[in-house]
Parts: sequence; C-alpha cells; structure tokens
Amino acid sequence: MQYTPLRFREKLAMIREPWSPKIIANLNDYHCKLAKLKGEFVWHKHDETDEAFIVLEGSMKIDFRDGSVALMAGEMYVVPRGVLHKPCSESGCSVLLIEPAGTLNTGDAGGERLVENPEWI
Amino acid sequence: MQYTPLRFREKLAMIREPWSPKIIANLNDYHCKLAKLKGEFVWHKHDETDEAFIVLEGSMKIDFRDGSVALMAGEMYVVPRGVLHKPCSESGCSVLLIEPAGTLNTGDAGGERLVENPEWI
Repeated sequence: MQYTPLRFREKLAMIREPWSPKIIANLNDYHCKLAKLKGEFVWHKHDETDEAFIVLEGSMKIDFRDGSVALMAGEMYVVPRGVLHKPCSESGCSVLLIEPAGTLNTGDAGGERLVENPEWI
Repeated sequence: MQYTPLRFREKLAMIREPWSPKIIANLNDYHCKLAKLKGEFVWHKHDETDEAFIVLEGSMKIDFRDGSVALMAGEMYVVPRGVLHKPCSESGCSVLLIEPAGTLNTGDAGGERLVENPEWI
C-alpha cells in the first residue's frame, strides 16, 4: 500500500484568505497547521505554550516588544510562551505552525481575526 | 534587538554523519531535530508518541509492514505511535523531526545506531 504524504504545495493551494490557519496533521495532542500571512496581524501572546513558525515560502517578520526576528523560507523560530508578538509579512508568505491543539491564532487578544475552530484541509 | 532565526541550511552544514539527529529547538517539552538520512535505518516503533518527518532536501521513503510512503522536499508525514517503520533514503536527504524530548531515534529497537543524548547544534 502506498501511503500519501502531506504535500505543502498542494495544501497551500487550498488556502485563500491570509491569517486563517488550516490543520493538516495531528502530532499527538499537537496540530500542524498551514497558513498564509500577508500584512500585519494583531499583538498577542500564548500564556500556555511555545509556538513554532516554519517559513515555507516568502518572508516574514515577528515583532516583539524589544525587537524582532526576520524569517525567510528555510528558517524557523519558536516564540516562547508568554511573549507578546506580532507576526507580519509585507510581501506575503506561507508558514507551517506547530502548537498544541486548541491554541488560538490570536492568543490572549481575541478579536475579529480569531479563528476558533480551524478547518482541516 | 534583532533575534536570530534557525536557518536549516546553516545548521545542516554542521551535520556530517547520517542517522544522527541534532536538536535545534525546544517547543514546550518537544524537540525539533535536524538529521541527514542516507541508506537504510533499522525497523523500530515508538509506543509512546507520534513522530513528524518534514523533508527539507532530497527524498526518502518510510517503509511500513503493509506498505510505504515516499517523501520529497516540501512534504511531511506523521508516523503514528506504535507503528513499525523503517526510514530509508537511497540518494540521501535532510529532515526536520518533531517529537517529544527524549524520543529515541531507534525507538524500541535500541542497537548500535541508538543516539541516546542528541547533541544541540
């Protein structure tokens, strides 16, 4: 039997709107999610968990209160729990996010960009 | 302050021997590890955890008792807990592994290819 891999390019083609993570896999009680980012997100933090950003295409920046990290395709960063951050991508990018299932995209901030139950693709 | 991303290419340049995962990041109580694979590994399973393989360069195959999955760069697969598997890569590849800290590379099999305390790079 031939099992099917998760192909990032195929899955990303199914995502239209930015800042709306889609779940592609379970890893124990974690979710692997794909998202397209474009423009600026909201300042927020996750008090209960670290959050891994792996950039697949394009480039992005994560702003912190005391600085920032610039990320390109082939680079990753783990935002520590409790650290206020604001992801942004001027030219647009695609990322793989890894974090515990149920982690909210807007963290403690809530608001209109909250996606409470991300779709599986 | 400019924070530094984890650059897969830079980190991979520090890895010489195949089948010897190196830790590059903590994600809560998980480890993100880079490894180069070349040739065949040993049959093993992880009874306590799923294991994520994300292929960064090259191609690989994971054999199961009832089939296999072929993976190229830009593809991932989560091997479910308890499932016997044997990773192999004829032409060589680089992978990002995500699994709980302490997960052994040879799982339940032990043996001479066991790397008990992977190095941080």
